[in-house]
Amino acid sequence: MVILILGADGYLGWPTTMYLASKGHEVIAVDNFAKRQWELENGITPLFPIATMHRRVDVFKEVTGKEVILRVGDLLNHRFVYKLFDELKPDIVIHYAEQPSGPYSMRDRATAFHTQNNNVLGTLNVLFAMHNIHNDCHLIKLGTMGEYGTPNIDIEEGYIEIEHKGRKDTLPFPAQPPSFYHLSKVHDSNNIRFATRIWGLKTTNLNQGVVYGVETDETKLHTELETSFHYDELFGTALNRFCVQAVSGHPMTPYGKGDQKRGFLNIVDTLKCVELAALNQPEPGFMRVFNQFTEVFSINELTHTIKDSASLCGIEAEISHVDNPRIEMEDHHYNPVHTKLTDIGLKPLLLRKTLIESMLKKISEYKNRINRKLFIMNVKWKKS
Amino acid sequence: MVILILGADGYLGWPTTMYLASKGHEVIAVDNFAKRQWELENGITPLFPIATMHRRVDVFKEVTGKEVILRVGDLLNHRFVYKLFDELKPDIVIHYAEQPSGPYSMRDRATAFHTQNNNVLGTLNVLFAMHNIHNDCHLIKLGTMGEYGTPNIDIEEGYIEIEHKGRKDTLPFPAQPPSFYHLSKVHDSNNIRFATRIWGLKTTNLNQGVVYGVETDETKLHTELETSFHYDELFGTALNRFCVQAVSGHPMTPYGKGDQKRGFLNIVDTLKCVELAALNQPEPGFMRVFNQFTEVFSINELTHTIKDSASLCGIEAEISHVDNPRIEMEDHHYNPVHTKLTDIGLKPLLLRKTLIESMLKKISEYKNRINRKLFIMNVKWKKS
Repeated sequence: MVILILGADGYLGWPTTMYLASKGHEVIAVDNFAKRQWELENGITPLFPIATMHRRVDVFKEVTGKEVILRVGDLLNHRFVYKLFDELKPDIVIHYAEQPSGPYSMRDRATAFHTQNNNVLGTLNVLFAMHNIHNDCHLIKLGTMGEYGTPNIDIEEGYIEIEHKGRKDTLPFPAQPPSFYHLSKVHDSNNIRFATRIWGLKTTNLNQGVVYGVETDETKLHTELETSFHYDELFGTALNRFCVQAVSGHPMTPYGKGDQKRGFLNIVDTLKCVELAALNQPEPGFMRVFNQFTEVFSINELTHTIKDSASLCGIEAEISHVDNPRIEMEDHHYNPVHTKLTDIGLKPLLLRKTLIESMLKKISEYKNRINRKLFIMNVKWKKS
Repeated sequence: MVILILGADGYLGWPTTMYLASKGHEVIAVDNFAKRQWELENGITPLFPIATMHRRVDVFKEVTGKEVILRVGDLLNHRFVYKLFDELKPDIVIHYAEQPSGPYSMRDRATAFHTQNNNVLGTLNVLFAMHNIHNDCHLIKLGTMGEYGTPNIDIEEGYIEIEHKGRKDTLPFPAQPPSFYHLSKVHDSNNIRFATRIWGLKTTNLNQGVVYGVETDETKLHTELETSFHYDELFGTALNRFCVQAVSGHPMTPYGKGDQKRGFLNIVDTLKCVELAALNQPEPGFMRVFNQFTEVFSINELTHTIKDSASLCGIEAEISHVDNPRIEMEDHHYNPVHTKLTDIGLKPLLLRKTLIESMLKKISEYKNRINRKLFIMNVKWKKS
């Protein structure tokens, strides 16, 4: 299959690129390196040194013999997007090309504006490219479990049957996103659902949980094939950040009470989920939604599990709750359904102490690169 | 009260400006004349000749003695927005400043992109101006009943209590908007709901039905105070367009079967609803939603009522169903709740034959300005 990967330079984009190229697909990696700009703006560096994308593609070819095509451009430039679809006629488009951080989007007006502009309008151009240029492809869009928020009812996969005043309908699950970034994903989902319906497109929305993990089979092949792993307040995800804090001797810093619950999955499972979505096409005209995570944990469960694993590695990790910079419920119902991906074959890689130990060991190799200032960057949901 | 009216040059903005200024409020009219540009792009003129906004403000002062302050600028320029909020410290902000047409947004990629860019990001700047510059004001935002689509259950006012698997919550009513324009309104609502909650803002979202009518008490005062009345396919609303078709001797052109049902209200009631929202402040921190319409009609009911009224005016109006350029249900359940505005005092001006007769007479005075080419402009939801 010809597979276009939008946002191929990122934490998930690059491992996905290598994984699918290794499987023999013709993979085209697309990025505009916006994320590297956002890092520079905020003085952020990923844990592992990351080569240029051009270099990573070359190294991947040297090591595996597999060729990945690189195209550099911005989804906000619709001529660039149209040209991709016209020349390459992709079977599958995997769309990671969005500003991925809640805290970044909440930093100030400019970043909120930029996030929604970049994410929503970039995706709109992709939808028009499908409609106007090359309809016969399947868009796999990365969404987020955050689209649902934390309602007091069980979360379904994208849609819910509602019975109301003696009548019934199956409607999009109500959205309660907790940041301007999460809102951009909701806007995307609404746009995609509409475009899919009126134009008969093939689309899958993967409402992904919080991803953790430092490596995949392909990133292990060469140090210059590492993925862009973040531990900072803006782009680092909970489990990853806690592990780096533990290694650096900094207390792990759960926000508030720490009873917030979220769905989590390993980065290796992200690749498998995306592959399963690609191999199992949706019907045209109806946006398919999968809830993409494998386990639910509270933040406190995470920090305590990491503390135990760290102890086995000879690290005495501390936990120090900090004021919650977000506005979110810290104690709430959380029972989201997630059966559709296992139904089509996902065998989850569950979080175990041994997995955390291997993460801690890998992170320890790069301990001297950890910048402890990046753990707390003071982005607050509401100015005090 | 100091009242900022964003989009004050439009069909509703200008009558609202005059109405509230007449009531003694200090009104600041804000526009960037984007709508006049969209008209020029498409060769569209409103039925009545419309003077410049500067001239209209001058005439209004000559006729009534009331001064309206005019500020020209674009909401996408946040410095302009911040300055408005900083200098004027409005008590009320009435926000009409959006691209208001479904068909315009569906014309092509550029107009869809422009609509979402203009509407969603302009509103985002307004929210940040409230948060960063002047929090103590009440945002009254014009939304649309189209946000809900046509679900097979009764539509509530913004929120619905859902019972699911033995648990309950009150959640935002699921959105199923039928165009990229309507989607922009849903994106706005989601952004406003979030910003209201985290920053404790005072906001009201008016999910308005289809507005009809040619005049208000103030537009009648002088020919140069007329409102920008559209009958074209892009900016003309159903009832207004049918009346102009009838007067011009063109058949009325319902789309498809014509059993589509929508909520309608007279332009005079729009002014009253907005005033009622302003006089009855919401609690901070929770986006209030009113469904703003007074009657439900099917398109066929409208055309037949107009036909009868036209007949009384000596006009033999014909009805000619055309292929539906939209993708929408033509026969569906439609029973939206709309009690909150009547609860706070709205006394609806209902559609009667005499009202339609007065519309037809007024339109007849401008019969020589009707451009019949504008009735059918061939914007289709899906390319054939």
